[in-house]
Amino acid sequence: MAENRFRVEPGTRVSLDRHDPADTGGLTKKQALEELDERRERLKELQELLYATRRYALLVILQGTDTSGKDGAIKHVMSAFNPQGVQVTSFKTPTPEEQAHDFLWRVHRAVPPKGMVGIFNRSQYEDVLIVRVEELVPRKVWERRYEAINHFEELLAQSGVVICKFFLHISKEEQRERLLDRLKERDSHWKFRPEDLAARAKWEEYQAAYEDALSRCSTDHAPWHIIPADKKWYRNLAISQVLEEKLAALNLEWPPLQPEAKGLIIT
Amino acid sequence: MAENRFRVEPGTRVSLDRHDPADTGGLTKKQALEELDERRERLKELQELLYATRRYALLVILQGTDTSGKDGAIKHVMSAFNPQGVQVTSFKTPTPEEQAHDFLWRVHRAVPPKGMVGIFNRSQYEDVLIVRVEELVPRKVWERRYEAINHFEELLAQSGVVICKFFLHISKEEQRERLLDRLKERDSHWKFRPEDLAARAKWEEYQAAYEDALSRCSTDHAPWHIIPADKKWYRNLAISQVLEEKLAALNLEWPPLQPEAKGLIIT
Repeated sequence: MAENRFRVEPGTRVSLDRHDPADTGGLTKKQALEELDERRERLKELQELLYATRRYALLVILQGTDTSGKDGAIKHVMSAFNPQGVQVTSFKTPTPEEQAHDFLWRVHRAVPPKGMVGIFNRSQYEDVLIVRVEELVPRKVWERRYEAINHFEELLAQSGVVICKFFLHISKEEQRERLLDRLKERDSHWKFRPEDLAARAKWEEYQAAYEDALSRCSTDHAPWHIIPADKKWYRNLAISQVLEEKLAALNLEWPPLQPEAKGLIIT
Repeated sequence: MAENRFRVEPGTRVSLDRHDPADTGGLTKKQALEELDERRERLKELQELLYATRRYALLVILQGTDTSGKDGAIKHVMSAFNPQGVQVTSFKTPTPEEQAHDFLWRVHRAVPPKGMVGIFNRSQYEDVLIVRVEELVPRKVWERRYEAINHFEELLAQSGVVICKFFLHISKEEQRERLLDRLKERDSHWKFRPEDLAARAKWEEYQAAYEDALSRCSTDHAPWHIIPADKKWYRNLAISQVLEEKLAALNLEWPPLQPEAKGLIIT
């Protein structure tokens, strides 16, 4: 399972129809769960190196329609990380203070510092997704945001922020099943929001908006990954695999003892 | 192992000499690790209820000398929580902006909102610990801080913040071992800070300052717990046990389906 299985090549046009949301890479659930356990262990180690060296930050961006598994990915994959080195930011309807700024202001504040893992549950991409579909700003405003996002992410990448963007791809039928589960299961009632049905009614418009974001904002410094997410166990494995590759590629090593500490005697 | 094994009764005078840092509650390491696994599972469930209901926040305060295991407790106990519901704040030397405010300003900003778990790695108590021992402010300034802290914590408790304060109690000899380990182990070099030895040289002054903080700021709304921390496995178990009791005592239940969601048909 190589990273480029999920990676959107910069400059290519994404058609979500050509990506199977039920793909499992030929693995069984049992195989995937075993591999996930191993990868979680390696993610723990790699994160400690990231934290100890403080040369890079890791920024994980999760996007996808309601029920696509953004929360689940955090719970089952990112929980491998030591919470001391993680900041999760959930971007919701902007507050009045956030509204009074440009759309990247609140996002910039939440970027993780070196040594840390930042996880964005939704992100700057909402400003070319819901904002576009619901026509919250005129077309000429959201049109120029793709380029603004690319410039912003390039700035981060140049400052040592490793950016991993995941689009969690589920089918409309799988979303239906998951919404029905929320209506049925007592411990999931709290997750059901009637307003999610309004977004579901605009499924095609949202898919088109995702396709544009994936096509126009997959760059060498911050590529998108399309994660088949109908099977939760494969979604988790696929994300863990991309994260491990990104972190391992940094080739980090344990920092040496500070010179002043050499030869110290502790009484 | 009842919670009051560790709890500092409000109004009593703490003498750390009378608390054995190597206490293990009569358990073996194997027993403690097994029990910790079970408690971590229950903490996961209780946190999800806290998150779903959004009626309370949990604030965990970790204090203790260098190497006492504050980071380790976060890594091994608090990692049970879903990272989406956790905010860790490490209080370090105040920045110029923080210095320009009262000592509780930066702490107040970091208090978790309802539904969330906030973990303070060090806290407002540094302002009656290092600040007192190193004489960074006059005695009359730090003297009135105990009462200010009690009032502040009372305000939080009245607003639904459940406060769990842990003092991680290790012996001077155990600290020596741990510092030596940091000098020896390649993957721990980064944790060694020569300046920690300066604090070690003032061990007695720090113990006296801890005793005052524990005695004067253990209240019904925010009691202190003294955790025997020479054995890391017992430290982790003891903390998990107190956290579980605190969360279980809230008797939270899954929120019902919103009325508008009843009878909805999803197509």
